[in-house]
Amino acid sequence: MRTQFHHNLDHLAGQLQVMCRRDGAAIATATDALLHADVELAEEVLDLCGDLEILREDCESTAVSLLALQAPVAGELRQVVTAIQLTGNLTRMGALTEHIADIARRRHPVHAVPEPVRPIVARMGAAAVAIATSAVEVLGTRDPHDAAALDDQDDVMDRLQHDLLTAVLAEDWTEGAAAAVDLALIGRYYERFADNAVEVGRRTVFMATGYTPGTWQPQSADRH
Amino acid sequence: MRTQFHHNLDHLAGQLQVMCRRDGAAIATATDALLHADVELAEEVLDLCGDLEILREDCESTAVSLLALQAPVAGELRQVVTAIQLTGNLTRMGALTEHIADIARRRHPVHAVPEPVRPIVARMGAAAVAIATSAVEVLGTRDPHDAAALDDQDDVMDRLQHDLLTAVLAEDWTEGAAAAVDLALIGRYYERFADNAVEVGRRTVFMATGYTPGTWQPQSADRH
Repeated sequence: MRTQFHHNLDHLAGQLQVMCRRDGAAIATATDALLHADVELAEEVLDLCGDLEILREDCESTAVSLLALQAPVAGELRQVVTAIQLTGNLTRMGALTEHIADIARRRHPVHAVPEPVRPIVARMGAAAVAIATSAVEVLGTRDPHDAAALDDQDDVMDRLQHDLLTAVLAEDWTEGAAAAVDLALIGRYYERFADNAVEVGRRTVFMATGYTPGTWQPQSADRH
Repeated sequence: MRTQFHHNLDHLAGQLQVMCRRDGAAIATATDALLHADVELAEEVLDLCGDLEILREDCESTAVSLLALQAPVAGELRQVVTAIQLTGNLTRMGALTEHIADIARRRHPVHAVPEPVRPIVARMGAAAVAIATSAVEVLGTRDPHDAAALDDQDDVMDRLQHDLLTAVLAEDWTEGAAAAVDLALIGRYYERFADNAVEVGRRTVFMATGYTPGTWQPQSADRH
Protein backbone atom coordinates (compact mmCIF):
# COMPACT_ATOMS: atom_id res chain seq x y z
CA MET A 1 0.00 0.00 0.00
CA ARG A 2 2.76 2.36 0.97
CA THR A 3 4.64 1.50 -2.22
CA GLN A 4 1.55 2.04 -4.35
CA PHE A 5 0.96 5.37 -2.62
CA HIS A 6 4.48 6.51 -3.37
CA HIS A 7 4.21 5.28 -6.93
CA ASN A 8 1.10 7.42 -7.37
CA LEU A 9 2.79 10.38 -5.71
CA ASP A 10 5.64 9.98 -8.24
CA HIS A 11 3.12 10.09 -11.04
CA LEU A 12 1.62 13.25 -9.60
CA ALA A 13 5.06 14.83 -9.28
CA GLY A 14 5.62 14.04 -12.96
CA GLN A 15 2.42 15.85 -13.91
CA LEU A 16 3.46 18.81 -11.80
CA GLN A 17 6.79 18.85 -13.64
CA VAL A 18 4.94 19.13 -16.94
CA MET A 19 3.11 22.19 -15.59
CA CYS A 20 6.30 23.78 -14.31
CA ARG A 21 8.14 23.14 -17.59
CA ARG A 22 5.26 24.87 -19.36
CA ASP A 23 5.61 27.85 -17.03
CA GLY A 24 9.31 28.08 -17.91
CA ALA A 25 8.67 27.89 -21.65
CA ALA A 26 5.93 30.49 -21.39
CA ILE A 27 7.97 33.03 -19.44
CA ALA A 28 10.91 32.61 -21.87
CA THR A 29 8.55 33.40 -24.74
CA ALA A 30 6.91 36.27 -22.86
CA THR A 31 10.30 37.85 -22.22
CA ASP A 32 11.17 37.60 -25.92
CA ALA A 33 7.79 39.13 -26.81
CA LEU A 34 8.51 41.97 -24.41
CA LEU A 35 12.09 42.66 -25.46
CA HIS A 36 11.34 42.56 -29.19
CA ALA A 37 7.82 44.05 -29.07
CA ASP A 38 6.73 40.90 -30.92
CA VAL A 39 2.97 40.54 -30.85
CA GLU A 40 2.98 37.04 -32.37
CA LEU A 41 5.17 35.74 -29.58
CA ALA A 42 2.82 37.39 -27.11
CA GLU A 43 -0.11 35.48 -28.64
CA GLU A 44 1.93 32.28 -28.40
CA VAL A 45 2.27 32.81 -24.65
CA LEU A 46 -1.48 32.93 -24.28
CA ASP A 47 -1.70 29.53 -26.04
CA LEU A 48 0.99 28.03 -23.84
CA CYS A 49 -0.72 29.31 -20.70
CA GLY A 50 -4.17 28.23 -21.86
CA ASP A 51 -3.03 24.61 -21.59
CA LEU A 52 -2.07 25.09 -17.95
CA GLU A 53 -5.69 25.04 -16.81
CA ILE A 54 -6.14 21.60 -18.41
CA LEU A 55 -2.89 20.34 -16.93
CA ARG A 56 -4.02 21.60 -13.54
CA GLU A 57 -7.25 19.68 -13.78
CA ASP A 58 -5.29 16.52 -14.61
CA CYS A 59 -3.12 17.02 -11.52
CA GLU A 60 -6.10 17.65 -9.29
CA SER A 61 -7.85 14.57 -10.66
CA THR A 62 -4.83 12.43 -9.86
CA ALA A 63 -4.63 13.88 -6.36
CA VAL A 64 -8.32 13.41 -5.68
CA SER A 65 -8.21 9.82 -7.00
CA LEU A 66 -5.29 9.18 -4.72
CA LEU A 67 -7.29 10.46 -1.75
CA ALA A 68 -10.40 8.53 -2.72
CA LEU A 69 -8.79 5.18 -3.58
CA GLN A 70 -6.02 5.02 -1.00
CA ALA A 71 -7.49 7.13 1.81
CA PRO A 72 -4.07 8.14 3.12
CA VAL A 73 -3.87 9.43 6.69
CA ALA A 74 -1.55 11.56 8.77
CA GLY A 75 1.64 12.59 6.97
CA GLU A 76 0.72 10.99 3.67
CA LEU A 77 -2.62 12.78 3.64
CA ARG A 78 -0.83 16.09 4.22
CA GLN A 79 1.45 15.31 1.31
CA VAL A 80 -1.43 14.95 -1.12
CA VAL A 81 -3.05 18.11 0.21
CA THR A 82 0.25 19.90 -0.35
CA ALA A 83 0.41 18.62 -3.93
CA ILE A 84 -3.01 20.15 -4.55
CA GLN A 85 -1.85 23.49 -3.15
CA LEU A 86 1.21 23.24 -5.37
CA THR A 87 -0.95 23.20 -8.50
CA GLY A 88 -2.18 26.63 -7.37
CA ASN A 89 1.38 28.03 -7.46
CA LEU A 90 2.07 26.53 -10.88
CA THR A 91 -1.17 27.94 -12.31
CA ARG A 92 -0.40 31.34 -10.83
CA MET A 93 3.03 31.37 -12.51
CA GLY A 94 1.23 30.97 -15.82
CA ALA A 95 -1.22 33.77 -15.06
CA LEU A 96 1.64 36.16 -14.20
CA THR A 97 3.35 35.21 -17.46
CA GLU A 98 0.16 36.05 -19.35
CA HIS A 99 0.15 39.50 -17.74
CA ILE A 100 3.69 40.11 -19.05
CA ALA A 101 2.72 39.00 -22.56
CA ASP A 102 -0.37 41.15 -22.35
CA ILE A 103 1.67 44.30 -21.72
CA ALA A 104 3.85 43.47 -24.77
CA ARG A 105 0.70 43.03 -26.84
CA ARG A 106 -1.09 46.16 -25.64
CA ARG A 107 1.92 48.42 -26.19
CA HIS A 108 2.71 47.01 -29.66
CA PRO A 109 4.18 48.45 -31.90
CA VAL A 110 5.71 50.60 -29.15
CA HIS A 111 8.32 48.85 -27.01
CA ALA A 112 6.95 48.45 -23.47
CA VAL A 113 10.56 48.24 -22.30
CA PRO A 114 12.62 51.30 -23.29
CA GLU A 115 16.19 50.68 -24.37
CA PRO A 116 17.94 51.86 -21.15
CA VAL A 117 16.32 49.17 -18.94
CA ARG A 118 16.20 46.39 -21.52
CA PRO A 119 19.29 44.66 -20.04
CA ILE A 120 17.65 44.51 -16.59
CA VAL A 121 14.42 43.04 -17.97
CA ALA A 122 16.44 40.54 -20.04
CA ARG A 123 18.17 39.43 -16.84
CA MET A 124 14.80 39.16 -15.05
CA GLY A 125 13.56 36.94 -17.87
CA ALA A 126 16.66 34.77 -17.64
CA ALA A 127 16.30 34.58 -13.86
CA ALA A 128 12.66 33.53 -14.24
CA VAL A 129 13.55 30.75 -16.69
CA ALA A 130 16.37 29.62 -14.41
CA ILE A 131 14.15 29.43 -11.32
CA ALA A 132 11.41 27.60 -13.23
CA THR A 133 14.01 25.12 -14.51
CA SER A 134 15.28 24.60 -10.97
CA ALA A 135 11.74 24.08 -9.72
CA VAL A 136 11.24 21.38 -12.38
CA GLU A 137 14.38 19.68 -11.09
CA VAL A 138 13.22 19.89 -7.47
CA LEU A 139 9.92 18.31 -8.48
CA GLY A 140 12.04 15.45 -9.83
CA THR A 141 14.74 15.10 -7.17
CA ARG A 142 12.67 16.43 -4.24
CA ASP A 143 16.02 17.31 -2.73
CA PRO A 144 15.97 19.85 0.11
CA HIS A 145 19.32 21.28 -0.98
CA ASP A 146 18.06 21.84 -4.53
CA ALA A 147 14.98 23.48 -3.06
CA ALA A 148 17.09 25.74 -0.82
CA ALA A 149 18.97 26.93 -3.91
CA LEU A 150 15.70 28.40 -5.20
CA ASP A 151 15.88 30.96 -2.39
CA ASP A 152 19.19 32.24 -3.73
CA GLN A 153 17.73 32.52 -7.22
CA ASP A 154 14.81 34.44 -5.74
CA ASP A 155 17.27 36.87 -4.12
CA VAL A 156 18.72 37.53 -7.57
CA MET A 157 15.24 38.32 -8.88
CA ASP A 158 14.51 40.63 -5.93
CA ARG A 159 17.70 42.59 -6.61
CA LEU A 160 16.82 42.91 -10.31
CA GLN A 161 13.36 44.17 -9.42
CA HIS A 162 14.96 46.70 -7.11
CA ASP A 163 17.36 47.79 -9.90
CA LEU A 164 14.45 48.20 -12.30
CA LEU A 165 12.47 50.36 -9.86
CA THR A 166 15.56 52.42 -9.08
CA ALA A 167 16.09 53.06 -12.80
CA VAL A 168 12.53 54.19 -13.49
CA LEU A 169 12.49 56.41 -10.39
CA ALA A 170 15.85 58.03 -11.07
CA GLU A 171 16.12 61.77 -11.74
CA ASP A 172 17.45 61.09 -15.24
CA TRP A 173 14.48 58.91 -16.26
CA THR A 174 13.21 60.44 -19.49
CA GLU A 175 10.82 57.75 -20.72
CA GLY A 176 7.76 59.14 -18.95
CA ALA A 177 5.32 57.94 -16.32
CA ALA A 178 3.49 55.46 -18.60
CA ALA A 179 6.64 53.42 -19.21
CA ALA A 180 7.49 53.66 -15.51
CA VAL A 181 4.09 52.24 -14.59
CA ASP A 182 4.40 49.39 -17.11
CA LEU A 183 7.83 48.54 -15.82
CA ALA A 184 6.75 48.60 -12.18
CA LEU A 185 4.03 46.08 -13.01
CA ILE A 186 6.35 43.97 -15.19
CA GLY A 187 8.84 43.88 -12.32
CA ARG A 188 6.12 42.83 -9.94
CA TYR A 189 4.99 39.99 -12.24
CA TYR A 190 8.53 38.57 -12.57
CA GLU A 191 9.06 38.84 -8.82
CA ARG A 192 5.80 37.02 -8.04
CA PHE A 193 6.70 34.36 -10.62
CA ALA A 194 9.92 33.70 -8.70
CA ASP A 195 8.12 33.75 -5.32
CA ASN A 196 5.74 31.07 -6.54
CA ALA A 197 8.66 28.97 -7.82
CA VAL A 198 10.25 29.15 -4.37
CA GLU A 199 7.01 27.95 -2.86
CA VAL A 200 6.91 25.10 -5.39
CA GLY A 201 10.31 24.02 -4.09
CA ARG A 202 9.31 24.23 -0.43
CA ARG A 203 6.06 22.41 -0.95
CA THR A 204 7.71 19.72 -3.07
CA VAL A 205 10.17 18.93 -0.29
CA PHE A 206 7.33 18.78 2.20
CA MET A 207 5.27 16.64 -0.18
CA ALA A 208 8.12 14.15 -0.56
CA THR A 209 9.49 14.07 2.96
CA GLY A 210 6.68 15.26 5.18
CA TYR A 211 8.87 17.89 6.78
CA THR A 212 10.17 21.34 5.99
CA PRO A 213 13.89 21.92 6.34
CA GLY A 214 14.57 23.99 9.43
CA THR A 215 16.51 26.66 7.61
CA TRP A 216 13.35 27.86 5.91
CA GLN A 217 10.64 30.08 7.22
CA PRO A 218 7.84 27.73 8.20
CA GLN A 219 4.99 27.75 5.69
CA SER A 220 1.41 27.45 6.81
CA ALA A 221 0.90 24.06 5.25
CA ASP A 222 4.36 22.86 6.06
CA ARG A 223 4.45 23.26 9.78
CA HIS A 224 2.49 20.15 10.71
CA MET B 1 -22.31 10.03 8.45
CA ARG B 2 -23.49 12.48 5.87
CA THR B 3 -24.91 14.70 8.61
CA GLN B 4 -21.68 14.59 10.56
CA PHE B 5 -19.78 15.45 7.38
CA HIS B 6 -21.96 18.48 6.75
CA HIS B 7 -21.71 19.54 10.36
CA ASN B 8 -17.94 19.50 10.06
CA LEU B 9 -18.10 21.37 6.77
CA ASP B 10 -20.19 24.03 8.52
CA HIS B 11 -17.52 24.34 11.18
CA LEU B 12 -14.88 24.75 8.50
CA ALA B 13 -16.96 27.42 6.73
CA GLY B 14 -17.18 29.25 10.07
CA GLN B 15 -13.39 29.24 10.38
CA LEU B 16 -13.07 30.50 6.82
CA GLN B 17 -15.48 33.32 7.70
CA VAL B 18 -13.19 34.37 10.54
CA MET B 19 -10.30 34.60 8.05
CA CYS B 20 -12.34 36.59 5.56
CA ARG B 21 -13.60 38.98 8.24
CA ARG B 22 -9.99 39.56 9.22
CA ASP B 23 -9.13 40.35 5.58
CA GLY B 24 -11.91 42.92 5.50
CA ALA B 25 -10.81 44.58 8.76
CA ALA B 26 -7.20 44.64 7.58
CA ILE B 27 -7.92 46.25 4.22
CA ALA B 28 -10.12 48.88 5.88
CA THR B 29 -7.23 49.75 8.19
CA ALA B 30 -4.69 49.65 5.35
CA THR B 31 -6.79 52.10 3.33
CA ASP B 32 -6.96 54.47 6.31
CA ALA B 33 -3.20 54.16 6.76
CA LEU B 34 -2.72 55.01 3.10
CA LEU B 35 -5.14 57.91 2.92
CA HIS B 36 -3.89 59.54 6.11
CA ALA B 37 -0.23 58.57 5.81
CA ASP B 38 -0.61 57.04 9.26
CA VAL B 39 2.29 54.77 10.09
CA GLU B 40 0.71 53.43 13.29
CA LEU B 41 -2.30 52.19 11.37
CA ALA B 42 0.07 50.59 8.87
CA GLU B 43 1.75 48.69 11.71
CA GLU B 44 -1.66 47.60 12.95
CA VAL B 45 -2.34 46.01 9.56
CA LEU B 46 0.76 43.89 9.88
CA ASP B 47 -0.52 42.59 13.24
CA LEU B 48 -3.97 41.83 11.81
CA CYS B 49 -2.44 39.97 8.87
CA GLY B 50 0.06 38.10 11.02
CA ASP B 51 -2.85 36.26 12.64
CA LEU B 52 -4.05 35.03 9.24
CA GLU B 53 -1.29 32.46 9.02
CA ILE B 54 -2.43 30.91 12.32
CA LEU B 55 -6.08 31.01 11.24
CA ARG B 56 -5.09 29.31 7.98
CA GLU B 57 -3.38 26.52 9.83
CA ASP B 58 -6.51 25.99 11.93
CA CYS B 59 -8.62 25.72 8.78
CA GLU B 60 -6.24 23.32 7.16
CA SER B 61 -6.13 21.18 10.29
CA THR B 62 -9.91 20.97 10.33
CA ALA B 63 -9.98 20.03 6.64
CA VAL B 64 -7.27 17.41 7.01
CA SER B 65 -9.01 15.91 10.08
CA LEU B 66 -12.20 15.78 8.08
CA LEU B 67 -10.42 13.88 5.32
CA ALA B 68 -8.67 11.53 7.73
CA LEU B 69 -11.60 10.73 10.02
CA GLN B 70 -14.46 10.66 7.52
CA ALA B 71 -12.64 9.64 4.33
CA PRO B 72 -15.19 11.36 2.10
CA VAL B 73 -15.31 10.27 -1.54
CA ALA B 74 -16.49 11.71 -4.86
CA GLY B 75 -18.27 15.06 -4.54
CA GLU B 76 -17.73 15.39 -0.81
CA LEU B 77 -14.03 14.80 -1.21
CA ARG B 78 -13.87 17.53 -3.86
CA GLN B 79 -15.65 19.85 -1.46
CA VAL B 80 -13.00 19.47 1.22
CA VAL B 81 -10.25 19.88 -1.34
CA THR B 82 -11.94 23.08 -2.47
CA ALA B 83 -12.09 24.36 1.10
CA ILE B 84 -8.34 23.87 1.36
CA GLN B 85 -7.79 25.83 -1.85
CA LEU B 86 -10.05 28.53 -0.47
CA THR B 87 -7.71 29.11 2.48
CA GLY B 88 -5.11 30.02 -0.14
CA ASN B 89 -7.28 32.84 -1.49
CA LEU B 90 -8.02 34.17 1.99
CA THR B 91 -4.33 34.16 2.94
CA ARG B 92 -3.44 35.90 -0.33
CA MET B 93 -5.96 38.67 0.44
CA GLY B 94 -4.08 39.33 3.66
CA ALA B 95 -0.70 39.39 1.90
CA LEU B 96 -1.98 41.94 -0.64
CA THR B 97 -3.29 44.06 2.21
CA GLU B 98 0.13 43.98 3.83
CA HIS B 99 1.67 45.27 0.60
CA ILE B 100 -0.69 48.26 0.68
CA ALA B 101 0.17 49.00 4.31
CA ASP B 102 3.82 48.62 3.49
CA ILE B 103 3.67 51.35 0.85
CA ALA B 104 1.99 53.68 3.37
CA ARG B 105 4.75 52.90 5.86
CA ARG B 106 7.66 53.28 3.44
CA ARG B 107 6.44 56.63 2.10
CA HIS B 108 5.71 58.10 5.53
CA PRO B 109 5.65 61.04 6.27
CA VAL B 110 5.02 61.68 2.55
CA HIS B 111 1.54 60.76 1.36
CA ALA B 112 1.80 57.80 -1.04
CA VAL B 113 -1.53 58.90 -2.51
CA PRO B 114 -1.43 62.49 -3.79
CA GLU B 115 -4.51 64.59 -3.22
CA PRO B 116 -5.95 64.46 -6.79
CA VAL B 117 -6.43 60.67 -6.78
CA ARG B 118 -7.31 60.27 -3.11
CA PRO B 119 -11.06 59.98 -3.88
CA ILE B 120 -10.39 57.07 -6.27
CA VAL B 121 -8.25 55.22 -3.76
CA ALA B 122 -10.87 55.84 -1.06
CA ARG B 123 -13.46 54.25 -3.33
CA MET B 124 -11.16 51.31 -4.00
CA GLY B 125 -10.78 50.82 -0.26
CA ALA B 126 -14.54 50.95 0.22
CA ALA B 127 -15.04 48.49 -2.66
CA ALA B 128 -12.50 46.11 -1.11
CA VAL B 129 -14.24 46.21 2.27
CA ALA B 130 -17.60 45.68 0.55
CA ILE B 131 -16.43 42.66 -1.43
CA ALA B 132 -14.77 41.11 1.63
CA THR B 133 -18.00 41.63 3.58
CA SER B 134 -19.98 39.98 0.78
CA ALA B 135 -17.55 37.08 0.71
CA VAL B 136 -18.06 36.58 4.46
CA GLU B 137 -21.80 36.44 3.79
CA VAL B 138 -21.40 33.92 0.96
CA LEU B 139 -19.31 31.75 3.26
CA GLY B 140 -22.33 31.80 5.59
CA THR B 141 -25.25 31.53 3.16
CA ARG B 142 -23.37 29.61 0.41
CA ASP B 143 -25.94 31.13 -1.90
CA PRO B 144 -25.08 31.11 -5.63
CA HIS B 145 -26.90 34.42 -6.15
CA ASP B 146 -24.92 36.09 -3.39
CA ALA B 147 -21.76 34.68 -4.92
CA ALA B 148 -22.72 36.00 -8.37
CA ALA B 149 -23.09 39.48 -6.89
CA LEU B 150 -19.37 39.38 -6.09
CA ASP B 151 -18.68 39.53 -9.83
CA ASP B 152 -20.50 42.86 -10.05
CA GLN B 153 -18.51 44.22 -7.14
CA ASP B 154 -15.35 43.06 -8.88
CA ASP B 155 -16.40 45.01 -11.98
CA VAL B 156 -16.62 48.14 -9.82
CA MET B 157 -13.07 47.52 -8.62
CA ASP B 158 -11.79 46.97 -12.16
CA ARG B 159 -13.29 50.29 -13.25
CA LEU B 160 -11.72 52.09 -10.32
CA GLN B 161 -8.34 50.57 -11.12
CA HIS B 162 -8.76 51.74 -14.70
CA ASP B 163 -9.66 55.26 -13.48
CA LEU B 164 -6.59 55.32 -11.26
CA LEU B 165 -4.26 54.28 -14.09
CA THR B 166 -5.88 56.79 -16.43
CA ALA B 167 -5.30 59.55 -13.88
CA VAL B 168 -1.63 58.79 -13.31
CA LEU B 169 -0.97 58.44 -17.05
CA ALA B 170 -2.80 61.62 -18.03
CA GLU B 171 -0.91 64.52 -19.62
CA ASP B 172 -1.73 66.75 -16.67
CA TRP B 173 -0.25 64.38 -14.07
CA THR B 174 2.20 66.51 -12.11
CA GLU B 175 2.98 64.22 -9.17
CA GLY B 176 5.92 62.49 -10.81
CA ALA B 177 6.84 58.97 -11.83
CA ALA B 178 7.48 57.71 -8.28
CA ALA B 179 3.90 58.41 -7.20
CA ALA B 180 2.63 56.93 -10.48
CA VAL B 181 4.54 53.73 -9.82
CA ASP B 182 3.26 53.48 -6.23
CA LEU B 183 -0.29 54.02 -7.41
CA ALA B 184 -0.04 51.45 -10.19
CA LEU B 185 1.06 48.88 -7.62
CA ILE B 186 -1.56 49.98 -5.10
CA GLY B 187 -4.22 49.62 -7.80
CA ARG B 188 -2.94 46.17 -8.65
CA TYR B 189 -3.10 45.07 -4.98
CA TYR B 190 -6.71 46.21 -4.56
CA GLU B 191 -7.70 44.56 -7.83
CA ARG B 192 -6.09 41.23 -6.86
CA PHE B 193 -7.76 41.46 -3.44
CA ALA B 194 -11.14 41.67 -5.19
CA ASP B 195 -10.23 38.85 -7.63
CA ASN B 196 -9.46 36.59 -4.72
CA ALA B 197 -12.75 37.50 -3.02
CA VAL B 198 -14.61 36.52 -6.20
CA GLU B 199 -12.83 33.19 -6.17
CA VAL B 200 -13.78 32.74 -2.51
CA GLY B 201 -17.41 33.12 -3.58
CA ARG B 202 -17.15 30.66 -6.47
CA ARG B 203 -15.32 28.09 -4.46
CA THR B 204 -17.70 28.44 -1.52
CA VAL B 205 -20.68 27.69 -3.75
CA PHE B 206 -18.86 24.68 -5.17
CA MET B 207 -17.87 23.57 -1.69
CA ALA B 208 -21.45 23.71 -0.47
CA THR B 209 -23.30 22.43 -3.53
CA GLY B 210 -20.75 20.44 -5.49
CA TYR B 211 -21.44 22.40 -8.64
CA THR B 212 -20.51 25.73 -10.16
CA PRO B 213 -23.36 27.89 -11.44
CA GLY B 214 -23.35 27.81 -15.24
CA THR B 215 -23.18 31.56 -15.60
CA TRP B 216 -19.64 31.56 -14.31
CA GLN B 217 -16.44 30.72 -16.10
CA PRO B 218 -15.64 27.18 -15.03
CA GLN B 219 -12.86 27.05 -12.48
CA SER B 220 -10.25 24.33 -12.60
CA ALA B 221 -11.32 22.75 -9.37
CA ASP B 222 -15.00 23.34 -9.98
CA ARG B 223 -15.56 21.55 -13.22
CA HIS B 224 -15.74 18.02 -11.91
